[in-house]
Amino acid sequence: MPFTLLPHLRPDTPAPASRHAPFPRYNFSGGHNDPASTPVAALRAAADAVFAREGRTLATYGLESGPLGYRPLRDVLVAKLARYAGIEAQADDILITSGSLQGLDLVNALFVSPGDTVLIEEDCYGGSISRLNRLGATLIGIPQDAQGMRIEALSETLNRLKTNGVTPKYLYTIPTIQNPSGSVMPLARRRALLELAMTAGFPVVEDDCYADLVFSGQRPPAIAALARQAGWDGVIHLGSFSKSIAPALRVGFLVAGWDIMSRLLALKQDAGSGALEQMVLAEFCATHFDAHLAMLRAALQVKADALVAALAEQFGTAAEFAAPEGGIFLWVTLPLGVDTSRLAELAARSGIALNAGAEWSVSAPERSRRRLRLCFANPSVDVIRAGITELAQVCHREFGVPVRSGNVVKT
Amino acid sequence: MPFTLLPHLRPDTPAPASRHAPFPRYNFSGGHNDPASTPVAALRAAADAVFAREGRTLATYGLESGPLGYRPLRDVLVAKLARYAGIEAQADDILITSGSLQGLDLVNALFVSPGDTVLIEEDCYGGSISRLNRLGATLIGIPQDAQGMRIEALSETLNRLKTNGVTPKYLYTIPTIQNPSGSVMPLARRRALLELAMTAGFPVVEDDCYADLVFSGQRPPAIAALARQAGWDGVIHLGSFSKSIAPALRVGFLVAGWDIMSRLLALKQDAGSGALEQMVLAEFCATHFDAHLAMLRAALQVKADALVAALAEQFGTAAEFAAPEGGIFLWVTLPLGVDTSRLAELAARSGIALNAGAEWSVSAPERSRRRLRLCFANPSVDVIRAGITELAQVCHREFGVPVRSGNVVKT
Repeated sequence: MPFTLLPHLRPDTPAPASRHAPFPRYNFSGGHNDPASTPVAALRAAADAVFAREGRTLATYGLESGPLGYRPLRDVLVAKLARYAGIEAQADDILITSGSLQGLDLVNALFVSPGDTVLIEEDCYGGSISRLNRLGATLIGIPQDAQGMRIEALSETLNRLKTNGVTPKYLYTIPTIQNPSGSVMPLARRRALLELAMTAGFPVVEDDCYADLVFSGQRPPAIAALARQAGWDGVIHLGSFSKSIAPALRVGFLVAGWDIMSRLLALKQDAGSGALEQMVLAEFCATHFDAHLAMLRAALQVKADALVAALAEQFGTAAEFAAPEGGIFLWVTLPLGVDTSRLAELAARSGIALNAGAEWSVSAPERSRRRLRLCFANPSVDVIRAGITELAQVCHREFGVPVRSGNVVKT
Repeated sequence: MPFTLLPHLRPDTPAPASRHAPFPRYNFSGGHNDPASTPVAALRAAADAVFAREGRTLATYGLESGPLGYRPLRDVLVAKLARYAGIEAQADDILITSGSLQGLDLVNALFVSPGDTVLIEEDCYGGSISRLNRLGATLIGIPQDAQGMRIEALSETLNRLKTNGVTPKYLYTIPTIQNPSGSVMPLARRRALLELAMTAGFPVVEDDCYADLVFSGQRPPAIAALARQAGWDGVIHLGSFSKSIAPALRVGFLVAGWDIMSRLLALKQDAGSGALEQMVLAEFCATHFDAHLAMLRAALQVKADALVAALAEQFGTAAEFAAPEGGIFLWVTLPLGVDTSRLAELAARSGIALNAGAEWSVSAPERSRRRLRLCFANPSVDVIRAGITELAQVCHREFGVPVRSGNVVKT
C-alpha cells in the first residue's frame, strides 16, 4: 500500500511549497543583488589564497576557530563594526551565522513562546513577520514615519502594555535602511528608543542587514553602539554580507554580550556555518570591502534613480513613495482600491514578480493592501524601465490605475 | 540599570555554552576528518573554475537553481546515489541542506511534537538523540548486534506499541557504518526493516552520512533504494559531504519524494544553503569524487588499524570492540565499573578528548556508562598511539583498568 504522510505530520506544519519556477523576466521581488557588481575576480583570488594557506583546516568542524565562527572573519568584523556602525566589540562578541536569518531563528528560539508579545515596525521585513507568526507570537506594529519607528507611538504602546501587565519579549527594528521603507532613523530617535528599552528592560533586536548600503556613505551609530556606550547588554545586533557582497553566500553575523551569546551558542546546534564562505569573505573583506562598497552603492543609486524615474513616468502621482536613502527596495503606495496581492498575481502572468504589501506589514489590511515592495538591485536599468511600463499596463487594466497609463508625467 | 536576561528567556532554553577551548593534544572526540586527506589542490582548482564561469550568479539567492539547491550538485548526486547507494532519484528528489544536521532538523520539524514516539538504534548518534530529547520526543532504543538494528527486537517493540495504540512518528537508523558501532546492516535485514515500516505505515529516516566510507568499497543498497523499487515513498534518505570531503564545508543532502519534499521545503526558510560550497563541491565531485574516496578510505583504514593495535597493546582484553567496517569511529566497551563520563573528565586534564557512551546511547545507564566512542580520523597515527597510551594510564589510575597497563598484549 502507498505511504500516507498526513497522519505523521506535526499539527502546525505549513502548507507544502510549490514547484520552483524559473526567474521571471522582470524580477522586482526578493532581495537579489546586482550581478554586475558581484566582485568575482577579487573573490576568486581570495578563494585561491585561503585554499593555499589553510585548505587543510577544512578537515575540522569549525576550523580552528571554535563555534563562534572563523576567527579572521570575526576580526574583520571587529574593525568593520567600529568603522561603520560605531560598535566597539571584541571578536568573541561576534557569532558568524548562516545568513542573518539564522541569527533571527536563534533569537526567536531564545525568547519566543506562543502568545509572547513582540514589538516590530508596522511595515517590516516579511521573513521576520512570518517567523514570528509561525511561532505564535503576538505582533504589535509600531507606526513609522520617514525617520522610522515613531517614538511617541512606541511609548504609548509600552504604557498600554504595562497597564495590561505585558512586557514585550523583544523589540525588532531595522533602523538603518529600513526594509521596506528605506528610511534611516536619526541619532536622537535611536537614543530615545534605547532609553525606553532600558527603562522597561526588554531586549532590542537591531537588524542592520542593509546598513552598509546608505547611498551617502554616512549613517548614525547603531543602537548596539549606543547601548554598549551606556554599558547596557540588552541589544542584539544582526548583520549580513548578503546585501554588501552576495546573497548566495549565506554569511551573516550577530553581535551580543556573553550572557546572551552563551545561550544563543547553546541553541546553534549546526556544527558550524559554512567555512569556505567565511574564509573567502574574510580574505576578500580585509583588503577590498570599502572600495567594493563604494562601487556597489553607486551602482544601486543608479538603479534606484531609474526605478523612481520609471514610476514617475508610468504611474505619475498614482505611485507615492519616498526616494530611498539606500538599500535595494522602494516601498510604493498605490491609490485606494488597488489590491497589490491581486496585482502581484496578474503581474506574474506578464512575467513580473513583486512583493505585495500584505506580507510586508502587520498593519490593518486596508492600509497594507495598496502597498508593494519593488527591489531594484537585480534587474538592469533597461529591465526596470520595461518592467514598470508593463506593470503600469497590468495595473491600469485591472484597477484603472494609473488613470492614463504612460501619459501622466509627474512634475 | 543592567540588562537582566533571565525573565525574557523561553522556559525551555538550554544551559549556556562554555567558552571555546582550543583543540586538545589527543582529539578522539567529534567527527573531525584527516587533514592530510583533504583534497585541497583539486578543491582550489574547482573554486577557480566555478568563480570564472558562474561567479555572477552569486548575486541571486539560490543562484539560478531554486530552493532545492545548486542544480549541478544535484545532478552529481543523482549519479552518485545511483552508483553508490542504488537509489534511482531525479534531481528534484534531492534537497541540498546546510549539513545533514539541517536535514535532521527539517525532518523533526515536519514530524515531531512533544510526547511523540521515535524509534532509534539503542546506541546511536548523540546529535540525533539530543535533538529528539530537546523536542520532548519519547525515544525507544532498538537493540543492535554486529549487523545493526535487530529486526526481531524491532518487531517486538512495534507489537507492544500497537497494543498500546502508539504509532511511531518515524524510525531513525544509520544502517551503513552505524554511528558509533561502525556496523553495516546486510541486505536481508534492510528488506525486513522496510517490510515492517511499510506494514505499519511509519516513515523511515535513513542517515547515510558515513556510507561512502566502507573500507571495502562494497555496500548494500540503501533502504531508500529498496523502498523506491517497491514504489513506497516513506523513506527519507540523508547524506553529507562532511565525511567524504570535509566537515567544515557544511553541505548535506536529503532525498525524498515530492509529497514529503514539498513540506520540508516549506519549512526550509533559510534563503538557501551556502552557494559557494555547493558550487565548489559540484565542480570537484564531477571528476574527482571516486578517486578521492578510494584514497580517503585507505588513509582511514590505516588509522583504524593503528587505533585497534594501540588499544590491544595498551588495554589488552579490557577493551572490547568490533573492528569497524569503515568510517571514522571505534565503539569501545570497558569492564564493568568503569564510568566513561568520569573517564572523559579525567582524560581531558591530560589533553585527551573522547565521547562518553552515555551521550551516544538511549540504553540503560549501566550499559552505556562503560562505553566510549573514539574518532580515529583526525589524529595522526603517532598521536593515536601516544593518546591511547596516555588514556590507558588515566583509566588505570582511576578504575584499575587495564589491570597492568602497558604490559598486557592481546593475542
